[in-house]
Parts: sequence; structure tokens; C-alpha cells
Amino acid sequence: MKEILWELTPVDEFIKRIKPHLKISFNTKNVSLDEAVGKISAENITSNLELPPYPKSVMDGYAVTSDDCSGASHISPAILKVNKVTITSGKKLSIKAKNGEAIPIETGGYLPEGTDAVVKLEDTIKRNDVIEVLKSVAKYENVSLPGEELRIGDTIIRKGDIIRPWHLAALEAIGKTEIKILDLKAYILCTGDEFVKDPKFPPFTRRLVSGWLHEHGITVSKMDLSTDDVEEILTKILKALQRNDIIITLGGTSKGSRDNVFDAILKLNPSIIIRGLAVQPGKTASFYAINGNLIASLSGLPVAALSSLELALRPLLQEWIGIKFLPRPKVKAILTRRVTTKTGLIGFVRVKVFSKDGKLYAEPLMTGGSGAIRSLLNGNGILKIPIVLEGFEEGDVVEVELYGPV
Amino acid sequence: MKEILWELTPVDEFIKRIKPHLKISFNTKNVSLDEAVGKISAENITSNLELPPYPKSVMDGYAVTSDDCSGASHISPAILKVNKVTITSGKKLSIKAKNGEAIPIETGGYLPEGTDAVVKLEDTIKRNDVIEVLKSVAKYENVSLPGEELRIGDTIIRKGDIIRPWHLAALEAIGKTEIKILDLKAYILCTGDEFVKDPKFPPFTRRLVSGWLHEHGITVSKMDLSTDDVEEILTKILKALQRNDIIITLGGTSKGSRDNVFDAILKLNPSIIIRGLAVQPGKTASFYAINGNLIASLSGLPVAALSSLELALRPLLQEWIGIKFLPRPKVKAILTRRVTTKTGLIGFVRVKVFSKDGKLYAEPLMTGGSGAIRSLLNGNGILKIPIVLEGFEEGDVVEVELYGPV
Repeated sequence: MKEILWELTPVDEFIKRIKPHLKISFNTKNVSLDEAVGKISAENITSNLELPPYPKSVMDGYAVTSDDCSGASHISPAILKVNKVTITSGKKLSIKAKNGEAIPIETGGYLPEGTDAVVKLEDTIKRNDVIEVLKSVAKYENVSLPGEELRIGDTIIRKGDIIRPWHLAALEAIGKTEIKILDLKAYILCTGDEFVKDPKFPPFTRRLVSGWLHEHGITVSKMDLSTDDVEEILTKILKALQRNDIIITLGGTSKGSRDNVFDAILKLNPSIIIRGLAVQPGKTASFYAINGNLIASLSGLPVAALSSLELALRPLLQEWIGIKFLPRPKVKAILTRRVTTKTGLIGFVRVKVFSKDGKLYAEPLMTGGSGAIRSLLNGNGILKIPIVLEGFEEGDVVEVELYGPV
Repeated sequence: MKEILWELTPVDEFIKRIKPHLKISFNTKNVSLDEAVGKISAENITSNLELPPYPKSVMDGYAVTSDDCSGASHISPAILKVNKVTITSGKKLSIKAKNGEAIPIETGGYLPEGTDAVVKLEDTIKRNDVIEVLKSVAKYENVSLPGEELRIGDTIIRKGDIIRPWHLAALEAIGKTEIKILDLKAYILCTGDEFVKDPKFPPFTRRLVSGWLHEHGITVSKMDLSTDDVEEILTKILKALQRNDIIITLGGTSKGSRDNVFDAILKLNPSIIIRGLAVQPGKTASFYAINGNLIASLSGLPVAALSSLELALRPLLQEWIGIKFLPRPKVKAILTRRVTTKTGLIGFVRVKVFSKDGKLYAEPLMTGGSGAIRSLLNGNGILKIPIVLEGFEEGDVVEVELYGPV
């Protein structure tokens, strides 16, 4: 039985209701470490080796037995015989230190048998084939112990993690040259006779959506155009469903005379229909599931589309696909002007956060309703009005999510 | 006269001193809007047109003269004659409304001459060739006025801005298909005989550096290896200087027996030498300028290298190249354990921020000194200890920069 939600659905409810209709496995592909940063890991990887493999010097100096240097000082230095071999970085030599011996060692060199500490070069004075040690060392001083860098079983990355620089370093450390990533694909369809007939004013909101998807680790396989013809829309979506996880249509969402996108999707027999979300702007957005894939029909107005992406798609991607997005920067700021939204809707207000006399202020930019891209260009933050509130008063200290520098 | 700073230099001083030695112009290249997200704009772009170009309907309904609907209500609707033409989105028609006339209009349609407002479809009842308007409308109600979306002279993007989704949308709106970006290139050289001789344990910190540069909009032209031979290091750096803005060497920074990287760079006659920064870890980092290009010699230990990148290179890139990085997410958290650093050094402490009983805590992860990549993998935040402090006490509320989800 088909689920249909006609009322403006709160975001939490939207996620709860649509998730069971969406698929649980996704295409993956291997990429080299060079291309992996910012992508989404499709595997859990743990360390299969111990680093360093042996006790390792973290200083240039002499490998010694700490007991031999006990009580050493400038006044009464310990005198040690210097071995002729120098241990360089990364090589495990089979030499063994004798009692009262110091073996020259470079940073990264493995300690020879019979030693348990490293005396720093600057804490010694060399005289012919002996050194004076001017400072005592504790056991394992200036030594990195096995497993200190990485232990067997250490988590390097989890499925759903955004791949960051330190992940790459740890993957290389355990000998990996590739990583399996989620190969998520989205298709964007802008509908409107006018866009097809007159390319002078393209449906520019598509660029906002494609850029947003890119920033969220999703590849846009195609940005397409269609007339308002229901059959054409249907054919294009049907074809796109074969190769994409997410279909986003833009435009034609207002409840008016022309609802061809809805009519086309209806013919594809979605297993769930959610018409309208309790967010403002963006309340005309609709969501559907077809064979486990997601279709999102968003407003063609840029801010309304962004509101749907931020308030609905981002948390859905976390819940559905398990992507662990990085937290967004937030600041507390003093609101310079009252803002309101209809009760029962989450408000998505663009603000300009600025600093004055050591305090942060947030100036709402609500020029021109939900559509104006200039409010996004002029602003640097989003103020979300919770669903239970009607708004905030001038002077209220509010939390703003920053999308640009202050 | 050559400038040389031998002492551990504070970061502010480092930036002030090295900046005059660095070049002020950079290579640029044009990229299509498809490839531009996350790159750095090399140009200031303002809008050269007004959007919408004419008053535009933001609803499906009827274009009317607001005066004709004055006082309209369910009890006493205004009766207007419906024009046979429907104004669809994006077309400027030359029709003119007569007195007492309503012209069907779709969302995005331009208002015909003689109208100044749009009545929503749902506020009307159609009866044959007339409509009953059930609600009065104010002048310009449901209308987007010229320039509301974008005005002539509006700033779309500035030089140094990271390109985000809304920039792309605005660029497409004004007819741009490309944008000029900074074409910054970096070369990474890892030195060490052991890496060349035995590729089993590669110098994995290079991946942390290359991933970090990638995240900061800089292309890594090559990750290279060299033995400890001064001539080889010199030759490789000299060649790399011709095609790169930034050279990063890794390894060989500790003040010990082997300082071949320093010796090689010295032969290239840098105009400034800064040996050591007042940060911990990372205090062995050195910086040089040669013909306006930057050379950074960083520790081969991953956390020390990251500390140099975050505390020194990131602010330098902002000051030198003018890149306007997005703010990092920060949270306040209760410190679970005392942390200290040497006075006079900025501390760079990895912490794990976690939530417990509704409060955020920060657990310092100082296992294994400066080198351990596992502290970065296990943690999700950085606590910076200001240069004037020796540390923080257990229970202190500290501000942590998050690099991963809590």
C-alpha cells in the first residue's frame, strides 16, 4: 500500500517515513589516495600492523642504557664509549650494545639491542672515541615505543566518514594505495518550456544544487533540461533512475495550474509521496521513493532550494546513507532585527554576521522573499527558527550557522 | 641584506617578516562552472544585469491592478474579467491589461503593463470568463521587483573567496560559463636515504600534507623523494621552484647531525631564513623565500607537520595570497585532564570531544609525543594553548576547533 503525506511534514517525520522506502546498498569504487580527499569512505579500515615496529629514536643522539647515565650532569658526566656504527633512520641493524657503550643514532633509527633510551646530541660532548653525557635519561626517553604511531586493530577510517588528510597518511602507513569510496550519483532535471526555448536565462538554481551535491561527496551525472511535457519529464526521469541514486527536479513545485513534474512522477508509481515540508522557504518541496531511489522535487527559487537541501536532504543523507558530515561552524550573535516565521514551520533565515565593538551581530537579510540569490551573496550565515517558535526578537542572542567568513 | 631569524619565532612575527619576501601575483586559469566549486576565485565579479529584468510573479494566479481588488473578501469578492492569454514563465508579452481585467499568470511570468500585483489562484473562484477575487492584494503583492534577485553592481564573488554553490548560481544567472581561479601549485619533497632504498615504509606524512593542500585549494604538482644527498635535494628544489609557488620539504628538520635540507636551501640563497617557530609540536619547522616563492621545511612527524600547516601556513596563505578561508567549527567543552606546554610556545593539542549528560567534554590525546598519527585518528578536535599561557587545568571550559564529527 502506497504511503501518501499531503500535509506539510516536519523534517524528523519526513526522514522517519521515507527511510524505509530507500535502498540500503550503494555502488562503490576504488580510488587512489591522490583522489580520495573529500570523498566518502565505503569501508571500515583498521590497522593490520604496528608502527613503529621496533623502539625508535625521536631525536638525533646516542642510543644508551639509561642505567649507564644515571646521575649524569655537567659536573659529573657519564663517560661512554662510542660505537663506530651510526644507526640511520628506518634500518633495523643486528648490532648489540655492550655495557658502557653509546651507539650514534639518527631520528627515526631503531634502537639496537641492549639500549633503552636516547641521549640528545646537544646533551653530550664528544672527545675522540668517547662521549661525555651531561644529563641523565629515563628509560624510553626520546624513544617511540612499538605501536605508539599505530597499533594493530586501530580504527583508521569508518564507513561513511569523509576522507581527510590524516586518513590518507594512515592508509599509506599501512601500505594501502587505494580506498573504496561510495560512488553516489545524482541527476538534476530543470523543467520549464521557457528554459528549453530561450537559453538566455538558464535555470541557474541548478548550479546551486550541483555545487551543493559536489560539496557533499555526490557526483552529478547530468544537469538536464525538459519542457513542461509530462511524457518528456517521465521518460527522462525513468532513464535517470537506472544510473542514479538521487534525482532532483527543479521548478514546477508550486501548487498551481501547472504540476507536470508531479503528474510525471505519479505515473512512475512511487512507493511513498511526501508533498510539502514544514520549512519556510521550501515548503513546496516534494519527495518520493522509486525502487529505493530518492526523487526530490525542489523549488526553482535558489534560497527555497537551498533550504530544502540543508534542512531536509543533508539530515536524510546522514540517516539514509550514513554519511558522517563534518560539523558546520556556528557562532552566537545578537540579532539586529526581529525575524518571524509561521508557527509549525522551521524558518531558514539568511543573515549577515558582523563584528562591532568586539561583539558579533546578525543582521537578517530577508529582501525579496524566498527567491533572492542576492541574500545568499550578501550574507554569511543561516539562522534557523525552530519549529516551536514564531521567531526571535531584536536583541536576542541567536546561534547562526556560518557559510562564509565573518 | 639577508634576513635570518634563528630563535623560535612567534607566528605573527613570522608572517610579518616573511610576507615582504613573497611574490604578489600568481598564475590563474579559467575553469568551467562544473569544476569550480572549492577553488579560489582570482577575480572580483559584479553583476552586469538586473534580475528579474521586469516585475515577475512569484505565484500562480492572476495579474491584476491592486486598486481593482481593494476591499475584496469572501463576502464581497471583486469581479474581474479574465483575459484569454496566459502568461507563462520567462516570456515578456506585449499585452496590456484593461481596467477591471485579470490576466492568468504562472510563477515566473512577467507582469503585463497595467498590472501591479498578483492574486493567488487559491484566492479566486473562476466562473466562465470572470473570476471572483476573495482577498484584496497590496501593490506588488506576490511580485518580485526588478533587481530583487540581482542588481547591477551586486558583488557576486571577490578575489580570494572560496567558490561555493551560490556563487556558481549567480555566475550562471549573469551568463558566465567560466571563472578565473588561482592556479596555485605546491611540490612536496620527502628526504631520507631509507625512503629511497626501502619503499616498504613510505614517508606517509606526505599524504597528510598533500590532502591538506588539496583541501586548501592548492594543487600538488608532485610528491617526490630524495636521498639525503645535498646536491640531489638542491637540484630537485631548484627545478621545482620554476613551476611551483610553494615547496614543502618533509623530514630532516631536527637540529642534529644531519641537516642536509637546510644546507641545500642555503645554497639557493634565500632572501629570508626563519629557523624554528614558537609552536609545539612543530618548533623545528623552517621557512624560506626564494624569488618570491615559499619553502617550508616541516617535520616528517605527522602531527608536527599538521601543527605547522594549521598554525603557520594557513594564516600565511590568508595574509600572503588573500585566500578567505571559511571559519572552522568550534565548540566549548570541559577539559577532562590538565594540559601544559612550554611558555612562549603555542600548544597544538589533539583532543576527543564527546557528549555526556548533555555536556561536552574534551579529552586530551597526548599519547606518544608529537608524532603519533593515532592521536589524530582517535581525536576530533584541536585545542590551541595561547602563547601567553602554560596550559589549561582539568575542568576548564576551553574552545576546541573540531576537525571531525562529535
